[in-house]
Amino acid sequence: MAADPRTTALADAVAAQRDLASGFFDELRAGTSDGPGVTRAAYGEGEAFAHDLLVRHAAALGLEVSRDAALNTYLTWPGRDRALPALMVGSHLDSVPQGGNFDGAAGVVAGLAAIAALKRLPGAQPACDIILMAIRAEESIWFQVSYIGSRAALGTLPPSALQACRTDTGRTLAEHITQLGGRPAALLGAPPFLPPGRIGGFIELHIEQAPSLVEAGLPVAVGTGIPGNFRYPAARIQGEQGHVGLPRRFRRDAALAAAEFAVGLDRIWQQYDADGIPMACTIGRFHTDARHHGLTIVPGSFDFSLDIRAYDEATLARLEDSMKTLVTEVEAHRGVSFELGARTSAPVGPVDPVIRASLEGAAQALGLPWRPLESPASHDAAAFAAAGITMGLIFVRNANGSHNPAEAMEIDDLLAGTAILAHWLRDAAGMCSVSGA
Amino acid sequence: MAADPRTTALADAVAAQRDLASGFFDELRAGTSDGPGVTRAAYGEGEAFAHDLLVRHAAALGLEVSRDAALNTYLTWPGRDRALPALMVGSHLDSVPQGGNFDGAAGVVAGLAAIAALKRLPGAQPACDIILMAIRAEESIWFQVSYIGSRAALGTLPPSALQACRTDTGRTLAEHITQLGGRPAALLGAPPFLPPGRIGGFIELHIEQAPSLVEAGLPVAVGTGIPGNFRYPAARIQGEQGHVGLPRRFRRDAALAAAEFAVGLDRIWQQYDADGIPMACTIGRFHTDARHHGLTIVPGSFDFSLDIRAYDEATLARLEDSMKTLVTEVEAHRGVSFELGARTSAPVGPVDPVIRASLEGAAQALGLPWRPLESPASHDAAAFAAAGITMGLIFVRNANGSHNPAEAMEIDDLLAGTAILAHWLRDAAGMCSVSGA
Repeated sequence: MAADPRTTALADAVAAQRDLASGFFDELRAGTSDGPGVTRAAYGEGEAFAHDLLVRHAAALGLEVSRDAALNTYLTWPGRDRALPALMVGSHLDSVPQGGNFDGAAGVVAGLAAIAALKRLPGAQPACDIILMAIRAEESIWFQVSYIGSRAALGTLPPSALQACRTDTGRTLAEHITQLGGRPAALLGAPPFLPPGRIGGFIELHIEQAPSLVEAGLPVAVGTGIPGNFRYPAARIQGEQGHVGLPRRFRRDAALAAAEFAVGLDRIWQQYDADGIPMACTIGRFHTDARHHGLTIVPGSFDFSLDIRAYDEATLARLEDSMKTLVTEVEAHRGVSFELGARTSAPVGPVDPVIRASLEGAAQALGLPWRPLESPASHDAAAFAAAGITMGLIFVRNANGSHNPAEAMEIDDLLAGTAILAHWLRDAAGMCSVSGA
Repeated sequence: MAADPRTTALADAVAAQRDLASGFFDELRAGTSDGPGVTRAAYGEGEAFAHDLLVRHAAALGLEVSRDAALNTYLTWPGRDRALPALMVGSHLDSVPQGGNFDGAAGVVAGLAAIAALKRLPGAQPACDIILMAIRAEESIWFQVSYIGSRAALGTLPPSALQACRTDTGRTLAEHITQLGGRPAALLGAPPFLPPGRIGGFIELHIEQAPSLVEAGLPVAVGTGIPGNFRYPAARIQGEQGHVGLPRRFRRDAALAAAEFAVGLDRIWQQYDADGIPMACTIGRFHTDARHHGLTIVPGSFDFSLDIRAYDEATLARLEDSMKTLVTEVEAHRGVSFELGARTSAPVGPVDPVIRASLEGAAQALGLPWRPLESPASHDAAAFAAAGITMGLIFVRNANGSHNPAEAMEIDDLLAGTAILAHWLRDAAGMCSVSGA
């Protein structure tokens, strides 16, 4: 197939951003290294470094810089008609502790490279604003709250979240925002920084957090949806501490109850897999109480966290029922009681079918091998979808999973994803006619 | 049945020790209380308090006091022929952290009360020495080593044990013994304090650590044997840390592997129970790594301890084979690897059939309701059996298990066990003819 010369020009312009992209990652790694990996705590030093680094790049590209009350950073390429709904791309710049350099940052770098590439094309000017958003505090490990930055911008962050404490510092989200110069009070009741109607569509590019694309030998995927979830961050099983001398019939072993529960949940997941219904179940914390550890002590209590996710609300509801049935069974079987504790949840994040078709068309036009892929992980794009903004997802091949120092994304693959992103921006912002000629 | 007047006199003399026994427990609790329970760390303050308290009581009874190089305390009632093998009774005076007041101490108090009762009987003088031994450091939670005090006295403590570190202080056993005035060097190579042939028999009275006697409505039991065990105090499962976005087929979840392993071991135990083969399996530590905890993190490693016990060596060997088969299955099923780490073991401790018959006969003669009972827990008596000394066991009814502040032993039940102990001492030390007349 003879390539459209405008598409070839776009692809060339994106390919020319290789140094920009790899240079950004190098600077980011150097500035947020923690030894084995990187640490960019939500509203911490590393995240602040990343936002400042982005702002430094904005100047070279002639982009407007703004920040909202929650300190999300926006780089704007002004459109011909600034009253039109803007097109937005972006992702988050925080990381988990000892995380990898690409999770989150890849979407910001891709957005920057896409804008830089489009700006190289002669005569390119978007009809509407194009905004790159660098989002704060996506990783829920810090405050045990999802999508803090994006929901703060969209006006959907519950006020109680401001009182959530960061797990390492013990200080509240409000204190952390204030310390960095933000205005937590402005997040209460005031109109959101991104009101409904301001954004015409949001695309998040993210590294894949599983090896599906590595397995399939494909550089990129177009996302089909973000799962909703329900979570019990601090669940507990109460049994009765006992001595090694206690016969089996008398034991109320909280750890064995937890083991039976975990195996039961995994069996449910296995069945869903067999039935072709995507879901995931993650127990990140699963532990006896260190204060009562002993070779000869039957554990009397057990703590765990639970995250169960699926791609439609009906499946989520069915899974929560099954989980609770399992709780009842284990309680009866093991003589223990479960205290599930606080429950949080996130709605399913549907990908807009028009955007999805457009991204698939872009991959096709660019001659990039791709596949559709559900995102088993959560992303800020889900918060945009929940706020009624159409959204789409691009995933980039990445070996060794994410949230660890061994994340391995090739810049070529990132540039493939960036080309799709740039293609969408070009078309959606009415720059279809720009060429490299 | 008309009671033998000598037995009645013995029972009366034991019953008269009620104040001695409850007073001792009261002083012991007051001196070693930690708030909810008691803490008498092996070679720590609480244990030292208990030994000193015992020595104070010895003077009133006119007993000889001695200590060995490992600081076990011996109270001796000299026999007519001091060259004869002595009869020994006793138990340990240490406790687990936040433990109960009766575990261990009951056996020492019973020995003291039995000797005090026998001394009340006119003309009582034993043919051989009667020795009450207060044993150090039985609870393996402190140094992760079994039977420290008894094996030190018997010359069977491996020299490497002296380098074991106490889990709370980080200091070695040798340092702890030295600090309290003991002589760890004397435990290396020198003849043991209790050489083979010195002891004609050892009886340990202990609270039951399960509610079998509560369930059966019986005050006492005569022990049928002490289980041997094999232990892996610091086993680990290595999987691969992953992100919540990882599909099931890619996960190598160390916590789920642990859960499957624990449930598998419990299924084995259930089968042994059904087959009437006594055993026990205890996983006291069972936990993810707190440094990597996160709601959205698939656990990459998992730590646990394992204690498996049974009443004959063949069963132990079969259980270890089954455990290892299970390890291999879980490794294959979950894509993880087990590192079982250091292995320790204790041999089965058989009860001497002649002593057992004598204790059963004593219970019968005293009109006490009793049953035979295997000891699922370990006891110092096993170290005596391993050193070739005939031994026997008496268990006393106790609610709420042991190793916790809610241990609940009635003094009447202790006195029942004490009467059996005194009856055995009287007969075995050739005092059968003493009467209360």
